[in-house]
Amino acid sequence: MSDMTRVALDAMGGDNAPGEIVKGAIDAVNLRDDIKVFLVGKTEVINPVLSEYTFNKEQVEVVNASEEIEMAEPPVNAIKKKKDSSMVVGMKLVKDGEADAFVTAGNSGAVLVGGQTIVGRIKGIKRAPFAPLIPTKTGVSLLLDCGANVDARPDQLVQFARLGSMYMDKVIGKKNPTVGIVNIGAEEEKGNALVKETFPLLKECKDINFIGSVESREIPEGACDVIVCEAFVGNVILKLYEGMATTLIGIIKEGLMSTTKSKIGALLAKPALKKTLKSFDASEYGGAPLLGLEGLVVKTHGSAKSKEVKNSIIQCVAFKEQDIAGNVQRMIESE
Amino acid sequence: MSDMTRVALDAMGGDNAPGEIVKGAIDAVNLRDDIKVFLVGKTEVINPVLSEYTFNKEQVEVVNASEEIEMAEPPVNAIKKKKDSSMVVGMKLVKDGEADAFVTAGNSGAVLVGGQTIVGRIKGIKRAPFAPLIPTKTGVSLLLDCGANVDARPDQLVQFARLGSMYMDKVIGKKNPTVGIVNIGAEEEKGNALVKETFPLLKECKDINFIGSVESREIPEGACDVIVCEAFVGNVILKLYEGMATTLIGIIKEGLMSTTKSKIGALLAKPALKKTLKSFDASEYGGAPLLGLEGLVVKTHGSAKSKEVKNSIIQCVAFKEQDIAGNVQRMIESE
Repeated sequence: MSDMTRVALDAMGGDNAPGEIVKGAIDAVNLRDDIKVFLVGKTEVINPVLSEYTFNKEQVEVVNASEEIEMAEPPVNAIKKKKDSSMVVGMKLVKDGEADAFVTAGNSGAVLVGGQTIVGRIKGIKRAPFAPLIPTKTGVSLLLDCGANVDARPDQLVQFARLGSMYMDKVIGKKNPTVGIVNIGAEEEKGNALVKETFPLLKECKDINFIGSVESREIPEGACDVIVCEAFVGNVILKLYEGMATTLIGIIKEGLMSTTKSKIGALLAKPALKKTLKSFDASEYGGAPLLGLEGLVVKTHGSAKSKEVKNSIIQCVAFKEQDIAGNVQRMIESE
Repeated sequence: MSDMTRVALDAMGGDNAPGEIVKGAIDAVNLRDDIKVFLVGKTEVINPVLSEYTFNKEQVEVVNASEEIEMAEPPVNAIKKKKDSSMVVGMKLVKDGEADAFVTAGNSGAVLVGGQTIVGRIKGIKRAPFAPLIPTKTGVSLLLDCGANVDARPDQLVQFARLGSMYMDKVIGKKNPTVGIVNIGAEEEKGNALVKETFPLLKECKDINFIGSVESREIPEGACDVIVCEAFVGNVILKLYEGMATTLIGIIKEGLMSTTKSKIGALLAKPALKKTLKSFDASEYGGAPLLGLEGLVVKTHGSAKSKEVKNSIIQCVAFKEQDIAGNVQRMIESE
């Protein structure tokens, strides 16, 4: 049992709950026998969905939670008051050591609040950054912080850089990952007050591979493995990234459907195009971890389908195997 | 002569100078007889290029400037020391009232420094924001500030909102333009310290049509006409916008060229796709003005080709006709 990675999954969170969430869980356990999923939520809702699938019963367990946190609910209140919500119950499983990780497509604000108050920050961690993987032309980059804790201090950004480096190395398997700070020019004297103060601290930091400033223009090309910025900027980058991809792919599809000739062309080009665009599909890479907590909390897109849920669950195995919490502990002690 | 719009054009600035710059000037004067262009730069370089074209000689005049400001040169020094550079000479023509506008594809930093020190800010303008038009699914939005003056104050952001509104109304012809502030959530309590302080000031502002927060995800869809933010964030948005477009269109082209079948498909779909992507082509919309100056200064992309140069020159006509400097003056007086 100790070799199993135990994932508490919020069966009620996100736009496609419970159908796609449950399917993601089944796909994960049918693919790997070293995963156990706790489906947390209303049993009367989950069981009928579950009954449609074939799977190893020992790998899936339903944990009842009678309440739900809505997508637009004010986070602090929601976590405080809804003690029997799927999110609070799922996070408590992690806190109590009954699960190694919690995965949810639910309310982002509530994930941030619950992660820090229920699962808890590792002592010495100043802020727990929200760190999604974003697709690039050459692979994938970790962008942090994309959370709700804006107006960060330079020492917090340095900690983000170290946490991000470790995650890319241990969980994603990118050895000696390059680290860049988001800036508005390549020169060291460029930037706002925060970047100018943080830059020399990152340069001095011996346990990361700091390559200097990256401009946002370079991010889609794959400028570096770990992209460090303050949460307001990170949130703007993450959402614009997704917005641009959606809009551009949308207008290209419209263009392809606009004439009879182009429709035939689209039909012929479709398989090749699909393969190409897949490389820019965020759902291939699982969800975004909240780093620096006593246990793993992963947030997938609110619109996540089963594939993203499955990938997020599988990602937890590497996180557990690599003992990320232990590594963070040692990182803090070496400060 | 007073009905003519006189544009000083930096013939030496940008990656494609002087060829594409001169061609842009010729295309503009051959299209409109109410424009006169001063081609500023080394006569011995400009004249041979000019001699290849047919045009009304009264509409084009070469003004000699013996120096050049390089793209990577430190801006303050460059403007101070290179008194006979095409940028300084061109801006002086505006300052002295001999030209209505200065258009350049040169060093952005030098444009910002020169614009404020040579052409000069209108009294009462706190900062001159750099305000490019960005293409969206439904048309075009003005994004400001995208300049180098980071860490702005709330009252400066309010002035940006008013300047941007006026520009969209008078120059672009968008009546009662909507104004949004870049934020990381739709609710008023979201945001960093700057946004939280600015939001109520914008709400109180009677001469703009403020619609509240916009998330970066909504920008490509055309969330509002005037997008207000601090320069660091604006710069990140502008460059990511361009980077995403380049990368995505690049990988789509690669995808289309990857198999024989897809190549045939691409051939059939090409005309329709081209038309669609044209709507997302920044060069259609001319350059970015530096707002709030005594005269007009417009910066085009460093990589601008003749079309963007031509469009930037033509944009100056509306700017002059609408007496933007006079309008800014009245705006300041009403504060």
